[in-house]
Amino acid sequence: MTIDVGDSGLQIDGPVLVGPVLVVGAGLIGGSVAMALTSAGVETYVSDLDPVVAHVAVSRGAGSDAEPPDNVRLVVVATPPDHVGAAVVNALTTYPGAVVTDVSSVKAQPLADAQAAGVDVSRYVGGHPLAGSERSGPLASAADLFVGRAWAVVVRDDCDPEAVTTVRSLARVCGATVVDMATDDHDLAVARTSHLPHLVAALTAGALGRGPERHLALSGQGVRDVTRIAAGDPALWRQIVLANADSLTGLLGEVRDGIDELVSSLADRDAGRVEAILRAGVAGTDAIPGKHGGPAMPLGTVRVAIPDEPGALARLFADAGDAQVNIEDLRIDHDPARQFGLVEIDIAADRVAPLLDALLARGWSAHR
Amino acid sequence: MTIDVGDSGLQIDGPVLVGPVLVVGAGLIGGSVAMALTSAGVETYVSDLDPVVAHVAVSRGAGSDAEPPDNVRLVVVATPPDHVGAAVVNALTTYPGAVVTDVSSVKAQPLADAQAAGVDVSRYVGGHPLAGSERSGPLASAADLFVGRAWAVVVRDDCDPEAVTTVRSLARVCGATVVDMATDDHDLAVARTSHLPHLVAALTAGALGRGPERHLALSGQGVRDVTRIAAGDPALWRQIVLANADSLTGLLGEVRDGIDELVSSLADRDAGRVEAILRAGVAGTDAIPGKHGGPAMPLGTVRVAIPDEPGALARLFADAGDAQVNIEDLRIDHDPARQFGLVEIDIAADRVAPLLDALLARGWSAHR
Repeated sequence: MTIDVGDSGLQIDGPVLVGPVLVVGAGLIGGSVAMALTSAGVETYVSDLDPVVAHVAVSRGAGSDAEPPDNVRLVVVATPPDHVGAAVVNALTTYPGAVVTDVSSVKAQPLADAQAAGVDVSRYVGGHPLAGSERSGPLASAADLFVGRAWAVVVRDDCDPEAVTTVRSLARVCGATVVDMATDDHDLAVARTSHLPHLVAALTAGALGRGPERHLALSGQGVRDVTRIAAGDPALWRQIVLANADSLTGLLGEVRDGIDELVSSLADRDAGRVEAILRAGVAGTDAIPGKHGGPAMPLGTVRVAIPDEPGALARLFADAGDAQVNIEDLRIDHDPARQFGLVEIDIAADRVAPLLDALLARGWSAHR
Repeated sequence: MTIDVGDSGLQIDGPVLVGPVLVVGAGLIGGSVAMALTSAGVETYVSDLDPVVAHVAVSRGAGSDAEPPDNVRLVVVATPPDHVGAAVVNALTTYPGAVVTDVSSVKAQPLADAQAAGVDVSRYVGGHPLAGSERSGPLASAADLFVGRAWAVVVRDDCDPEAVTTVRSLARVCGATVVDMATDDHDLAVARTSHLPHLVAALTAGALGRGPERHLALSGQGVRDVTRIAAGDPALWRQIVLANADSLTGLLGEVRDGIDELVSSLADRDAGRVEAILRAGVAGTDAIPGKHGGPAMPLGTVRVAIPDEPGALARLFADAGDAQVNIEDLRIDHDPARQFGLVEIDIAADRVAPLLDALLARGWSAHR
């Protein structure tokens, strides 16, 4: 069967999710899950410690904030990380017939909490939709927040197979792509690909903040990229990194060893050792999968100077459209003093020349 | 007087730069300087250890690769970092009437090299255009590479004032904005805002590369941002960080101390200390100057789902243009499995609602 996902106009083939579903916690992620389910026709209830938050979510299409019926089939725990374990235990106890999942970014701790509480965890299947946002709260939620994103489903040997199927269906109904992972493997993976980069970005941004203000006038796009995620909510990230402390400790040790190796190589003026560290970094960037999960495509970059005014980007992309190139990524460089910008457009390497020709022919100042 | 800069259609008011100018090293930066000067009507010569590189630059509009006349007024040293000191000494000796500058990203070492060689350094004024690029070589050069960028001019008490004026004119003729800085201050500033972020990105990317490949399926935009600059040329960056080793050692120590503090806070499950480190990171990102050097503008983000096909961005920006919003930045999220993408558009916070309305009215799936 085919399900419409939110307002996206996209249709997903897959198993139906049977309600009623209760979403506990109506912030960005919980609110968005409830909106996606409601717009897919699933009977959905939301609750939140703060009834105003639940009410705002409902007003945005998240279902109902009335008392849920006893026959809830699925509970989605979407509380802040510190409260996930307790909420999972509570859901397993309150709804003995329901499947229980959560959407937090660390998976070992809620399971350990539930096991420590002595409840049967076969109906609990952890999940983790990768829909990061620097925003939070119910006003930021959207039915299509998960469309096209990965949603890790943490399958354990002691899970009820039907519970696993239900949680996979939840991810698909929200428009996400299911990625099966084991508990510890998931937590190590997010430590490496998300939590460690966040901490490193925070430390680098912290070093920036300790410098004299005049130094920051030399900030270019590189340091902005490296530190961007460090702007995320400290109270939320504190809970995430503490919940994943065991996975992070080893990785932080790896980075500290790398720093020690760098400091000693710099002291020795050992060019070979410094370059080896930099080459390992290049290899790491090459290892990140390309768009759509395939191997990284060879990309080229076209740089265009544009006036800093409304409509300039529209004109640029209208002109670029005639070259029939598919833009893979782009960046706008923030200039320190002038009223125009530089746009860097990443496209398949073999489309660089046609795009450049097309833009130059339309009078743009563009170069490789 | 008014000078046309490259093909950009921009005109710069400022002092004229009188040639002949000799650019030593015809790679990305040297070639681009020579092209900017030539297109501004300044008599320009380029040389390179590899005559083919010089020839390619000349074929792209970098002036002449003939033997320069004896009356060279300005020598711009644009060699790889390891060779800047020797090339500055050579230029000061060969052209006793010329001003000498360089374009390398570290300023203490070339000066120390020149002083150690016993030459008169009053005609040497170091410079540093901030036009980073992951590309290199003469084919990547462009007359407008520096338009809108900062160009640090390192003024010393022992500099001939006319030499300082000449180097400032060079920066302006290339379309850049002059930022005056002292030698050690400059090197500390770039260590903090460029070289440290590069090394941290390289270490983080290196940690990624050591993980199992399946973990990288969870890579989102955050880790891509943090590690992007780690893809830069290791041979070039090895020279840069070694030349700035003294400034970097202290900063690397700061990051190592931060890691030690994090590891111990995680071991103690000390939420307050972890959150303090994260808050320092937020403060650091807030300290980076906003666009055009002014205070950071409050920005909001609009997220739009677009089909992954040629022309989709063009249609999006054509529609966005009608809302008369000025796009400050944008990102395209690479999806793990689906054939469409998410575009995140950063605009002034008070323009979020009008843009959202305009896009929804045109049938886009957009949310905050």
